[in-house]
Amino acid sequence: MKKNIIIGQSGGPTAVINASLWGIIEEGLSRREEIGAIYGMVYGIEGFLSGRCMDLSAAFSPEDLALLKYTPGAYLGSCRHKLPSNMDSPAYSLLFEKLEAMDIGAFFYIGGNDSMDTVEKLSRCGALRRSPISFIGVPKTIDNDLPVTDHTPGYGSAAKYVASTVREIVLDASVYQQPSITLVELMGRHAGWVTAASALARKFPGDNPLLIYLPEFPFSVERLFADVEKALAKTPNLVICVSEGIKDSAGKFICEYASEAQTDTFGHKMLTGCAKILEGYLKNHFGVKVRSVELNVNQRCSGQLASLCDIEEAAEAGRFALKCALDGATGKMVTLNRLPGSEYRMVPGLAEAAAVCNKEKTFPAQWITPDGCDIRPEFISYALPLIQGEPPRAAENGLPRYIYRRS
Amino acid sequence: MKKNIIIGQSGGPTAVINASLWGIIEEGLSRREEIGAIYGMVYGIEGFLSGRCMDLSAAFSPEDLALLKYTPGAYLGSCRHKLPSNMDSPAYSLLFEKLEAMDIGAFFYIGGNDSMDTVEKLSRCGALRRSPISFIGVPKTIDNDLPVTDHTPGYGSAAKYVASTVREIVLDASVYQQPSITLVELMGRHAGWVTAASALARKFPGDNPLLIYLPEFPFSVERLFADVEKALAKTPNLVICVSEGIKDSAGKFICEYASEAQTDTFGHKMLTGCAKILEGYLKNHFGVKVRSVELNVNQRCSGQLASLCDIEEAAEAGRFALKCALDGATGKMVTLNRLPGSEYRMVPGLAEAAAVCNKEKTFPAQWITPDGCDIRPEFISYALPLIQGEPPRAAENGLPRYIYRRS
Repeated sequence: MKKNIIIGQSGGPTAVINASLWGIIEEGLSRREEIGAIYGMVYGIEGFLSGRCMDLSAAFSPEDLALLKYTPGAYLGSCRHKLPSNMDSPAYSLLFEKLEAMDIGAFFYIGGNDSMDTVEKLSRCGALRRSPISFIGVPKTIDNDLPVTDHTPGYGSAAKYVASTVREIVLDASVYQQPSITLVELMGRHAGWVTAASALARKFPGDNPLLIYLPEFPFSVERLFADVEKALAKTPNLVICVSEGIKDSAGKFICEYASEAQTDTFGHKMLTGCAKILEGYLKNHFGVKVRSVELNVNQRCSGQLASLCDIEEAAEAGRFALKCALDGATGKMVTLNRLPGSEYRMVPGLAEAAAVCNKEKTFPAQWITPDGCDIRPEFISYALPLIQGEPPRAAENGLPRYIYRRS
Repeated sequence: MKKNIIIGQSGGPTAVINASLWGIIEEGLSRREEIGAIYGMVYGIEGFLSGRCMDLSAAFSPEDLALLKYTPGAYLGSCRHKLPSNMDSPAYSLLFEKLEAMDIGAFFYIGGNDSMDTVEKLSRCGALRRSPISFIGVPKTIDNDLPVTDHTPGYGSAAKYVASTVREIVLDASVYQQPSITLVELMGRHAGWVTAASALARKFPGDNPLLIYLPEFPFSVERLFADVEKALAKTPNLVICVSEGIKDSAGKFICEYASEAQTDTFGHKMLTGCAKILEGYLKNHFGVKVRSVELNVNQRCSGQLASLCDIEEAAEAGRFALKCALDGATGKMVTLNRLPGSEYRMVPGLAEAAAVCNKEKTFPAQWITPDGCDIRPEFISYALPLIQGEPPRAAENGLPRYIYRRS
């Protein structure tokens, strides 16, 4: 008997969340004897609860479907919606009624640890209701902070964007002979994975960025001054990469240091990045030109600088999710497992969604140098395979061609 | 008799300032019967005055020379150094002694309008001294604000970067169903050319960015509120592009609006971008999620998203400069002239450096819509040819391979 399937995207978008969507659709279309309609939740579980849904089976021309694989963002739209803890909540009755009315056999949710919470709750509720529906999670997050899996789809592209862009900022920062400091602020409120990728930007040993600070190591302005003094003796044009989430030994975020002093014209506290705050400290202490750059959302939405390895793995995670659902798995998340050996090889696997949801995998302490201002070579070996390869360029009028939902 | 030549780069770097350097070197190497040594000033005229110079004739392997063409930044290093107005200044005696000692026949300066001031002064001083040296300027600036020339090398790549990136930010900003406003701040303190390029980002008529504000049209927060109210009725996820240099009808920069209220922990005024300031205004007025993104230096240093048309024109401007110098021209700047007709064709020409230096070409008022919040189609026709084509990707370990000077 044919199963209808439904797919949702949740949480912040990445460069490859659509590649996973593509993987599920592509695999579904190639198994027409087993798969009936392929539905998409518009705006995730939140949109689905309010009746937003679309038929993906016939939504794409072959050319459009190919574009989907390389289009950043979340084609279906996304949400940040937490399902209730109480399994008796009417939200679950509504959800299962809808799923049953649509004759859904498998439910796929592409997202981070909050989304795995949704998968875990739905599969638990499904078991209570003796529902035959498979609930499978497909991981995505640029933060790379999910446990169990070697890495998350989305991380390789963010890492490649950060490394490429920091390499270019280093070139830009090095043109004048006058001493200068450039601070680059990178994403990762609780985990330093994205910021650590800036170490890949170096063209030769001893190249900028000379200093890299992650949230996993207590930050101190005094130590920063000492580190910068040493670094300025090596290069007149210093580039420093900092994670947005660096905090001091008391656990206070550096980005909160100046919040008393900074209010907008309405008296509201201004949300200032830590790089902007450190810019002031460094200017005051060293008296040289200091600039801060915040790479911002481009870290997660740059399709042009995405990693082909990441795109292919995200697609494979989607395909594998469908295969596992057809085999009857539920309450699971797809994982990426690195095989031992010098050549990089990855095979997909499954983990309990319960083992992932609401947990965070931070950057390993042993991959940070003892002085807390650099990354060890073990990380380079770990990350390099993940940033390999460039996606094909689909251009129209000199700009990247992307697919989008019109509604 | 063979001439030695010398080349300098000056002002802020762009994605293609090295393509012009490549053009001069490439043309010089192909004319070994006329050209002797090819020197580079390290850190522009400022570095040259203090004795910093390198021999470019034999500095590159063929592979490295090819990389130079596609490497962003200023390979030779740059400076912001204004020569004195008084032609009797000892700086000129020193400069001409150095040039004569090196047997220089032609001097090339790749830069913006300040650099053309250097070319103009040196050629005027050369005439007073009856020097046979040719002084030729090669234009570059992402700002596109030089008069006489149709556009400047560097602009096409900045425009392509802005259009590609804003297109991706629009995808990123559109994933949630909750209303939101995203402000993108773009470069151009006095001219709106770079910001106007965000209009190219639209995938279909009526797509974001729905509102675009340039410095050439007086900005008003009240009008912004009215514009945003109308735009939010069309889309829940509004993207607005603003130039860093927008100012009100009294001529006050919007980025100066909140400077009294914002001080860092040392009591210094914080330099905040106008998007950050408008973020506060819009949050307060509309009560929706507002985010601001500053594209920052990536606009001028992204080699990955550069325009091939721009790179080739920058290289051609370099080659043409050398040809003109050999023909005896001096005190000139290379211009790019667009030929009439529906197909885009550009031919290089020459203008007096004096006609360019210290002058600015702002964005044409007639290309801004009467309500001041959008760009007219005439600009799209003007700009589209300039962003065409992608440079080849030279990758090493998954990252762009760039050449750099080691010293």
